[in-house]
Formats: sequence, structure tokens, C-alpha cells
Amino acid sequence: MTVQAITWAPSGAVRIVDQRALPEALVHRDLESVEAMAEAIRSLQVRGAPLIGIAAAMGLVAGLREARALSRAAFLERLSGAVDCLGATRPTAVNLRWALDRMTAVAAATPGTAAAVWERLHAEAAAIWEEDRAMCRRIGAAGQTLLPDGAKVLTHCNAGALATGGIGTALAPVYVAREANRQVHVFVDETRPVLQGARLTAWELMAAGVPCTLITDSMAASLMRAARVDLVLVGADRIARNGDFANKIGTYPLAVLARHHGVPFYCCAPSSTIDHDVPDGDAIPIEQRSGDEVTTIAGRAIAPAGVATFNPAFDVTPARYVTGFVTDRGVVQPPFAR
Amino acid sequence: MTVQAITWAPSGAVRIVDQRALPEALVHRDLESVEAMAEAIRSLQVRGAPLIGIAAAMGLVAGLREARALSRAAFLERLSGAVDCLGATRPTAVNLRWALDRMTAVAAATPGTAAAVWERLHAEAAAIWEEDRAMCRRIGAAGQTLLPDGAKVLTHCNAGALATGGIGTALAPVYVAREANRQVHVFVDETRPVLQGARLTAWELMAAGVPCTLITDSMAASLMRAARVDLVLVGADRIARNGDFANKIGTYPLAVLARHHGVPFYCCAPSSTIDHDVPDGDAIPIEQRSGDEVTTIAGRAIAPAGVATFNPAFDVTPARYVTGFVTDRGVVQPPFAR
Repeated sequence: MTVQAITWAPSGAVRIVDQRALPEALVHRDLESVEAMAEAIRSLQVRGAPLIGIAAAMGLVAGLREARALSRAAFLERLSGAVDCLGATRPTAVNLRWALDRMTAVAAATPGTAAAVWERLHAEAAAIWEEDRAMCRRIGAAGQTLLPDGAKVLTHCNAGALATGGIGTALAPVYVAREANRQVHVFVDETRPVLQGARLTAWELMAAGVPCTLITDSMAASLMRAARVDLVLVGADRIARNGDFANKIGTYPLAVLARHHGVPFYCCAPSSTIDHDVPDGDAIPIEQRSGDEVTTIAGRAIAPAGVATFNPAFDVTPARYVTGFVTDRGVVQPPFAR
Repeated sequence: MTVQAITWAPSGAVRIVDQRALPEALVHRDLESVEAMAEAIRSLQVRGAPLIGIAAAMGLVAGLREARALSRAAFLERLSGAVDCLGATRPTAVNLRWALDRMTAVAAATPGTAAAVWERLHAEAAAIWEEDRAMCRRIGAAGQTLLPDGAKVLTHCNAGALATGGIGTALAPVYVAREANRQVHVFVDETRPVLQGARLTAWELMAAGVPCTLITDSMAASLMRAARVDLVLVGADRIARNGDFANKIGTYPLAVLARHHGVPFYCCAPSSTIDHDVPDGDAIPIEQRSGDEVTTIAGRAIAPAGVATFNPAFDVTPARYVTGFVTDRGVVQPPFAR
């Protein structure tokens, strides 16, 4: 069974898996307000490009429950502030902006009272979530054709069930191949600095009964050189029109290594990750995060006090390194039509 | 000032910097016996290919102090057991075996009592150490010509003063260039799983006043793509006759990335690291270490309990990726004459 990363709480709050607590504990947290959701996204309690889009949409609904009694104008003003608050949390993920734009547009297009607008937002958030689940399934169906029985996959970061409302993006082909009773082994990059691979991907694969091996990011090259990797599957936080894409730091070197060793390299993402306003990778903003993520692990210093650091959350992989983009519209190639 | 990684204690024991305690604390430890030295090498209190050769030689001297009163035959038998004990600690480092062979040979060639043999061993260990200091200086002198004012260097693991009896191997050119008042900036790979870069290299560079920036291993590619790295300097644990070499896991992907981005890639090591009995990299034994190094950091679990791991301590970089070998005999190219 794959894990369910997000759902509604009985109170109308958004119930999330607090991903900071994994793998030690499976902690669910009910987020009652927009501010709580913004903080959850900022602090990576909720992460993964598709999931934070869903979470932001659901967070608007949960956070504006009390605003239903306001005037329509006051409600829309509160909505606008909430959208700004959530939109500022993670600059690279295009799904976040996409989901917020979509919520804003339906609110504007819905006539009537604040309560009527809120009901429409509730339905829209549910639709975004449901579409995401279906999208994951379609990515899985398209990608599983790449995985023969006994396939050895390498993945980076977490683009699994914990990153989406469904069965994931990069891991969806793995789950679908397993449902078809094919053997698949996944090598999991630990993914420093935040260790999403070690903490999240290894955890969800083990929970789902998928054989996996955890490695440090520096070991992938040795596996490729020894012909122990059949293909690389990664997710994406934003894809430019020409196919250049931003994903977790450490994706680009994997792409170079895959090319060098003749290993196919696939980017798995929903069509909503394609930003048609961005012509190429140079135009994708790269979030710089605190150096504390590099100098400490689990609160303990691993480097000298005061050391300078460089901590980009993402790198950009040029489209020419990508064997194919596994999307909800099949395995496709750039440039992408709108 | 560069740190001094090893010296004699007044008691005749070997005084080491316990490298497990860095960067939190600078702890010196006096090792009185062969068993204590073997455990210190095995547990990485003392590490770095050149340093463990020196440490093993000095450990023989300290550990056999009490055996001076024995018969010559009994002393040589004790020596033989001590050599076996120390030689089994790290299979990949050729300097360890080289130093132990050298000590064994001088013992056999020295006539007279156990005390006379011990005195000869003492002088030989001192010579190994002194030669190492001079070797570091020569590597530094040869390599500093590669570092113009303002050079940006990337290094991996720790091949600095903490890895040798002197000013290091890969970092020696940096220290010599700094002595000549040239600006040098060092990007330091943290070097998972044991974090020698974060814990040791960043610490010794900061202690010596050399500007540096700590990165995760997965960030080196982004720096190279942005043309922020002028050259890569790494050490070696064992170099085959044809120039293939084993070094800390994560060295090979750096070599591929450097080649891909047109960045010069140098391996800095003493001539004693060349194993003339090994024709190529395939013949170098690769030490596999405990998966605990991958699944825990500073004693805290970062991965699900029971996850499978792969943890080779080293990888092999084929000679064709190496721009030059910076040795005590200058910058040279394979194949290496004996």
C-alpha cells in the first residue's frame, strides 16, 4: 500500500503527513489556517511539487472556512491575501502558482455570496486533488512500459506518493509495474542536504514492499559504471518550454553521469509542471536555502561553526540530457505545446 | 598554521589528533599499543592514506617498547604479529602495506639484540614521517604552479594536513600558493557518508586561514556548470601502474563531471601510493564498510530501520580522466616507471 500524503480532517482542516518526522514516526498534523499551511510548506512538512499545489488549494479552503460569513468583497480580499501568503513560500515550484491561480480564477468567476464562492473553492480543491491522483496513475501507466521484469531503477529525492496526492510521479511507474507483478529494484539517492531520499523515498518504498537500496549521492556513478542501473527516474519542480527542468539539487550530475554511461534518464512530471511562460532553464528562479541545512543534520553540527556554504535547493538539467518526459499525456519530447 | 596530525608523546606513545572528534573538539590521544593503533586506524580516528602508513610505523615502535627486553627471535615474532594486526585494518591503502613492509625489511636487516632492532625501527619510523613531510612539500611545490592568483579549487574528502605527516597532498598546493600570498578559494565537498570534507577539510582550511565554501557532494556539478571551479584537486588511496586510482567514494563522478565541463582534474599523491604490482583499477580491492555509515549520522538514524545499503569506501577513477598526477616527482603521466 502506498502512503496517503494528504486528506481532509473531520474538522475541515487539512490533514498532512508531517514529512519532517519521517522515518522515525508517521505523524499526521491538522492544519487549520492559511498561516499554518504556509509554515508547513516553508518548513518542508509538506513538500513535493504536485503535493504543495494541492496543499495550497486545500489550505485556502480550510483557512477561509470562518470567512464564509463575510461579505463577498471582504471574502475575496481575504482570499487574495491568503494566495499571496501561500505563493511566497516556495519560488521554484510552478504547481504551487498554478494551483493558486486556478483557485483565484474560479473565485472570481463564481457569482453570489462568500459562502457560494467558498463552496466553489472547496469543489475546485477537491478537483485539483482528484486530478492529481489520476495524473499519477497516467504517469505510472506511461512509465511502466519502460520497466521490464527485473528492472533496476535509480531515483533521486522523493517524487513518490509523499510528493503528490496519489502514487507519485517518478515512483508511479515503479508502483504500477509492481502491481503487474514485475520485479523492480530501486536504488535510492539519500539526497543531501535534506535527505528526502533516505527519509522519505526509502520509507515509502519499504512501506509499499518495493525492494530498494539506499546509497549516498556520491555512489550513483559507481553503480552506473558497474552496469547496475538500467534507467534513472526523477521528478521535476518546474519544466521550461524547451524541456530544461529544475529539480532537487543533485539531479543535473545524475543526468550527466547517465549520459556518460549510456543509461536512459527520464523526467516524470505532470503537464502542470511545464511553465509555458519560461523559455528555457536559465529563466527558472532557483531557491537558495539556509546554510544550516548543509552544516547540521538532525540538529547536530557536522561542520565547523561559521563555515561559508552554498545551498541551492535545485539545479537545472538541460533538455538534451533527457531521454524522455513521462507525463500524464504519455512519454513526450520538448518543445512542449501549450 | 596547518594542523599537525601526528607526533610522539613524551611517554613514547604515538600522539594523534582523534579525527572522529572534529570539528567539535581538537582531541589528542596517546596510543600506547599496537592494538590501540589498529583500532584507531580501523575506526578512522587516524585516516588518510599517507598518515596511516606513518601511524602504523610509529605504532610498531610504540607498541614494541616493552619487547626490547626479549630475545631477538621473540622480538621479531612479536613484530610479525603486530605487522599482521596493523596490515589488516584497511585493505585499500597501499601506503599502509608499504610502510609495514619497509619496517619488516629493516628489522630483518639489522643485526644484534632486540633493543638494537627496536632502535633501528624507531629511526625508520622517524624517517618515514620526515620523508612524508618533505613529500608533502614537494607535491605542494609542483602543484602550486597550477594555481594562479584567485584560483577556485574543488576538493573531495580530506587529503590535507590531517591526512599526512605534513601539509597534505591535494591541499599542499593550496597551502604553498597561500604562502606565496596568492588568493585561493576552496570549494569543499562534504563527502558523505563519513563527512571528511565537512568535518576535517573545512576545519583545517579555516584553521589555516584559507577561504573555503562547504557544499554537499551533489552541488559540485552546479558550480562547474556555472564556471565557478577552475580545477579539481583530489588525493588517492592507491594508484595502479596504468594510472587508474582508488580514492574516496565520490571521486569518480567528480572526474566525469570535470571532463564533461572542461575542468582540469588532478590527482595529488606521493609516489609511494603507486602500486606497481597492480596493473589497472580493476585489480584494486575496494573496502566495503558498514551500512551504519549511510543510515546514521552522528548516531542518529536518518533512514528507516532495516533499509538495505551499499557502502563502498572508495571508487576507481580511470586514468583517462586525470589531467595530471601531482607527485613528489613533479606533475607526471602514467604509465609509471618503478
